[in-house]
Amino acid sequence: MISRRQALTDGAAAITAGSFLLSGIQQAQAAQPATATPAQSITDQQPMPPAQPGKDYTPVVTPNGVSLPFKIVDGVKVFHLIAEEVDHEFAPGLRAKCWGYNGRTSGPTIEAVEGDHVRIYVTNRLPEPTSVHWHGILLPNGMDGLTGLTQKAIPPGETFKYEFTLRQHGTHMYHPHFDEMTQMGLGMMGAFIIHPRNPKTRPDRDFAIMLSEWRIDPGTSRPNPLEMIEFNVLTMNSKAFPATAPLVVKLGDRVKVRFMNLGAMDHHPIHLHGMNFKVTEINGGDVPEAGQSLGNTILVAVGETRAFEFIADAPGDWAMHCHMTHHVMNQMGHNSQNMVGVKSAKLDKKMESLLPAYMTMGDTGMGGMSDMAMPMPENSIPMSGGKGPFGVIDMGGMFTIVKIRKDLPTYEDPGWYDHPKGTVASTATTNDLNRDNIEIPKSGN
Amino acid sequence: MISRRQALTDGAAAITAGSFLLSGIQQAQAAQPATATPAQSITDQQPMPPAQPGKDYTPVVTPNGVSLPFKIVDGVKVFHLIAEEVDHEFAPGLRAKCWGYNGRTSGPTIEAVEGDHVRIYVTNRLPEPTSVHWHGILLPNGMDGLTGLTQKAIPPGETFKYEFTLRQHGTHMYHPHFDEMTQMGLGMMGAFIIHPRNPKTRPDRDFAIMLSEWRIDPGTSRPNPLEMIEFNVLTMNSKAFPATAPLVVKLGDRVKVRFMNLGAMDHHPIHLHGMNFKVTEINGGDVPEAGQSLGNTILVAVGETRAFEFIADAPGDWAMHCHMTHHVMNQMGHNSQNMVGVKSAKLDKKMESLLPAYMTMGDTGMGGMSDMAMPMPENSIPMSGGKGPFGVIDMGGMFTIVKIRKDLPTYEDPGWYDHPKGTVASTATTNDLNRDNIEIPKSGN
Amino acid sequence: MISRRQALTDGAAAITAGSFLLSGIQQAQAAQPATATPAQSITDQQPMPPAQPGKDYTPVVTPNGVSLPFKIVDGVKVFHLIAEEVDHEFAPGLRAKCWGYNGRTSGPTIEAVEGDHVRIYVTNRLPEPTSVHWHGILLPNGMDGLTGLTQKAIPPGETFKYEFTLRQHGTHMYHPHFDEMTQMGLGMMGAFIIHPRNPKTRPDRDFAIMLSEWRIDPGTSRPNPLEMIEFNVLTMNSKAFPATAPLVVKLGDRVKVRFMNLGAMDHHPIHLHGMNFKVTEINGGDVPEAGQSLGNTILVAVGETRAFEFIADAPGDWAMHCHMTHHVMNQMGHNSQNMVGVKSAKLDKKMESLLPAYMTMGDTGMGGMSDMAMPMPENSIPMSGGKGPFGVIDMGGMFTIVKIRKDLPTYEDPGWYDHPKGTVASTATTNDLNRDNIEIPKSGN
Repeated sequence: MISRRQALTDGAAAITAGSFLLSGIQQAQAAQPATATPAQSITDQQPMPPAQPGKDYTPVVTPNGVSLPFKIVDGVKVFHLIAEEVDHEFAPGLRAKCWGYNGRTSGPTIEAVEGDHVRIYVTNRLPEPTSVHWHGILLPNGMDGLTGLTQKAIPPGETFKYEFTLRQHGTHMYHPHFDEMTQMGLGMMGAFIIHPRNPKTRPDRDFAIMLSEWRIDPGTSRPNPLEMIEFNVLTMNSKAFPATAPLVVKLGDRVKVRFMNLGAMDHHPIHLHGMNFKVTEINGGDVPEAGQSLGNTILVAVGETRAFEFIADAPGDWAMHCHMTHHVMNQMGHNSQNMVGVKSAKLDKKMESLLPAYMTMGDTGMGGMSDMAMPMPENSIPMSGGKGPFGVIDMGGMFTIVKIRKDLPTYEDPGWYDHPKGTVASTATTNDLNRDNIEIPKSGN
Repeated sequence: MISRRQALTDGAAAITAGSFLLSGIQQAQAAQPATATPAQSITDQQPMPPAQPGKDYTPVVTPNGVSLPFKIVDGVKVFHLIAEEVDHEFAPGLRAKCWGYNGRTSGPTIEAVEGDHVRIYVTNRLPEPTSVHWHGILLPNGMDGLTGLTQKAIPPGETFKYEFTLRQHGTHMYHPHFDEMTQMGLGMMGAFIIHPRNPKTRPDRDFAIMLSEWRIDPGTSRPNPLEMIEFNVLTMNSKAFPATAPLVVKLGDRVKVRFMNLGAMDHHPIHLHGMNFKVTEINGGDVPEAGQSLGNTILVAVGETRAFEFIADAPGDWAMHCHMTHHVMNQMGHNSQNMVGVKSAKLDKKMESLLPAYMTMGDTGMGGMSDMAMPMPENSIPMSGGKGPFGVIDMGGMFTIVKIRKDLPTYEDPGWYDHPKGTVASTATTNDLNRDNIEIPKSGN
Repeated sequence: MISRRQALTDGAAAITAGSFLLSGIQQAQAAQPATATPAQSITDQQPMPPAQPGKDYTPVVTPNGVSLPFKIVDGVKVFHLIAEEVDHEFAPGLRAKCWGYNGRTSGPTIEAVEGDHVRIYVTNRLPEPTSVHWHGILLPNGMDGLTGLTQKAIPPGETFKYEFTLRQHGTHMYHPHFDEMTQMGLGMMGAFIIHPRNPKTRPDRDFAIMLSEWRIDPGTSRPNPLEMIEFNVLTMNSKAFPATAPLVVKLGDRVKVRFMNLGAMDHHPIHLHGMNFKVTEINGGDVPEAGQSLGNTILVAVGETRAFEFIADAPGDWAMHCHMTHHVMNQMGHNSQNMVGVKSAKLDKKMESLLPAYMTMGDTGMGGMSDMAMPMPENSIPMSGGKGPFGVIDMGGMFTIVKIRKDLPTYEDPGWYDHPKGTVASTATTNDLNRDNIEIPKSGN
């Protein structure tokens, strides 16, 4: 939040009760005696000069994504979102016609700084009306984007202008507030990151990951937005592992990872291997240091944003993924049958006479399936499987890797977070994993 | 919690180890050296004189609900709950035979004050036994209401007496602890609010909202309590939008909203538009100020109560709703088919020969459905739709509106939170929403 | 965490940046000026002398479970886990072929102390490969157990050696990171508790409870690991009520209960009756006192560990259970039909001609079902039902009882937390539950 003093020295002299209240209920209480004075309109606050990327803030990295460009017109940061159909690849082998913004799903990340005045044009190129809700952002009621309640829907072909001053910082989101089931179910969502104006510290690496979930039946070409319960494509920034770009950082970096969840129903517990983090931000609000604790898993509920920070002090390849079993699997793992423990030789023989080349899968577990060369339905991805330095990584969906290295290409290198090509190996103690010469204790354990 | 000193001056001289422990584990630790002295029975604590509404506390408002009347008999607050079948309207068009208390679901809100001694008669007018568990409330074991473990079930036709002293404050609940699946699935639940005895501050407006979920198949007359997964009527105080009463507050008010969740399986993330709040209470315990942070979404898990507070500093109409997509829709949005992108003209023609007036819905999205005059099955509600100042609000279910106004009818006005009738309009910046004369930046964005 | 000073006096002189960073991001910040110095390898830290149970820490009690024995070899604590098929009883009447460790599911609890150096042999006696991930534990990358990424899978018949120094304390877990769907779905998981080295206080009683969920269709002999949505056996340490061992404690004890959740998809809100607790640990990190609040329900998400502490100041039998309705029911409550309110006499007559002895169940609610002598399918358990001092406790699944007594058998008594045999009765105010002679207030309430 912009402090009273800072706002004054920056020339925003017209401190309103409204802006002051934002710095916390306690302060509000101190300021307001028994009979509360009604706050002035929140539209009174003066904007500050537009902040510059690199100089005033470290830009966010959106893995598999981009930030939305802007231009400054008369001291206003002007953005342009275009709602439209998108031909999207979730992972090699699986494409679908989705809806998104500016040619992509998730939409581009909007980045700005506390005190900036922003103007955002939204052009509707969908076959039905839409609107944009700026989720978590303090703004005048008419800018809130809720069709019917605060504005008319934007008809196909038209452009709507949203405009407001950013009076807070934090991880926020944008999404339609019209026919949400369809429009969000088809991929319309994006990050809206507001950096603090003059932070005491900045992360070295700052990542933004949007979590979402889809129902795409094998062979179909569109996600089904009417699915309510059982989703079969789980994504980070609309990509499923192995297509999720890893987060590559330098040993010793202070890393911030911001998660946003605009899925339909699942609250995702994201688990980080190898390091402890502190949750520093919940739904756009800074968590006070006195309330922070170390941990390794963060529950990001639907409609929530949460961020954690850690020091990348452990070199190697560390998984970061949703811990719900079926959220780290892809399409083909869903809707199978339990064959564990079934003696399949006889069955295979019977089936073979009907279906040449029939083979029962899963009778000793499902572990081989990622690796198996089996015929796949058109437009589908197997249940899991990425290539790792020690064989197949039998994960899918909401799974990615944090790669911590001593030396890195410069952050600006465009190929910087490409998939590694064969050069990746655990830097730590692979030598220690020698399975010869073990001494197993004898007595009972 | 009642402090040691306060309890003493109020005459409750017999401070027990039990009551002292309540003020926190740390304090308990200080009081108890290495070898812990077993606490005295918690039944020792003396009750305090019964507190008066208005004078000693600001009564809670239960939107679409009421508080349970009581009478004071020999210094005891005496309440009477009647468990019975209820003919309930969820929203215009949808009624069902439910089970509840005193003619309603959710049951009436029980309100009392820390230190009050309460006696609650429970009369069973159901066709099967029942009991009442006072969820979250510290009391003697025999009063806990768990049939089989702490009491026999209350047979149909009989009345049971519960009695205990309130040794804490906070947002709590009551519900059966016998055949929970049926009895809670049919609507038996209510709020039990215990106000602090001498709080430093009081909210100007204090709301209590019970979240629950139901399965009511179109055309049936009873909720199905056996549904485990897919609920199709999502409610606040047993009402679905547009039947949910808005929360009307005055500009500048300090507002507290208490949520309770006694649904069967969904943890609901409630999102507030337009203002930041602080979570001040979790499961009846005050959140220390050092641990509070600003936010806009609160996850209320099944069996939990959580409350937030905010200053109503932003005039206008602000949505407050569960963010799970299908929880802001009503019955008819469930169990439909994905028609997005399907060229329907041909299909319509074919179908028309079979079903006159057939019309494919949803081929350009589902946005028009709220508004559509189509034949509905008996006893059902469309997927969504309330009337707003700017057209249809295409939401349903667990959705309501916080209305912040400069001038209000007095709080006592019984018609006070009726639905607004055409006079509601955004007070903020509607004028700014002029879509003529926009200047769209040219280069690439 | 091990403090800098303590580590020094214990002879672990080589304080590394890595270990120092562990004590919190704030401290890390203080230590690292603008240009962060890359941390040294985390493998540098010196182990401490192995700690002794009883002397250096109070051992954890795993209800229905055991701790894994170890032997000390050259200052190293050596454990041996054997992954294998297990014939497991969930509750009397329901057995299934599961997968687990050392003859049981959940696997035995691994217990050690901060600073211990541990070596864990894992022998694979399953029909498919496996690996072990030490969930939440800080260790070298090659020890992380993620097949494909940090190691090759352990083939059937082989033994793998994991070895690392424990640089933290807290409640952690172990589970496979290969074919997780099958291996965790069949029961492979266990607790890994690391006690602090020199804690200021210790709990008098310390319990560890692993939450998991299964799909076992009546009549089948194996859990179905492919189920994604609807589980019908919900367990604490792989037992369903009434088979869950109660937690027996002495009046006045400081009690710690650690929950771990390695189910496939449900986040469980565990509700404690009768006492307030404080959440003291989340995902292995101590919650600072300034951020703790009193409560009665704790949401344990998938992949999470959380612990609470309370003073057992209320004598009696207090339920502790998941609050999701269908998680406190067993198999047979699932997949039934709604008969509430159906006039069944006519139907019964019709059915009787087809099915002699047919009886409609549930037409006045489901409350009688726990008690009903009805024919059950082979290998199945009824929806609920344990014997209590006041009749049937109609709960099942993820439900247990905290028994608080003035006098107890010594903790070492092996029969100590057997089921009570008829001697249990509420010690508190049963006498007060006299339903004769009640005075019901007349006017309106």
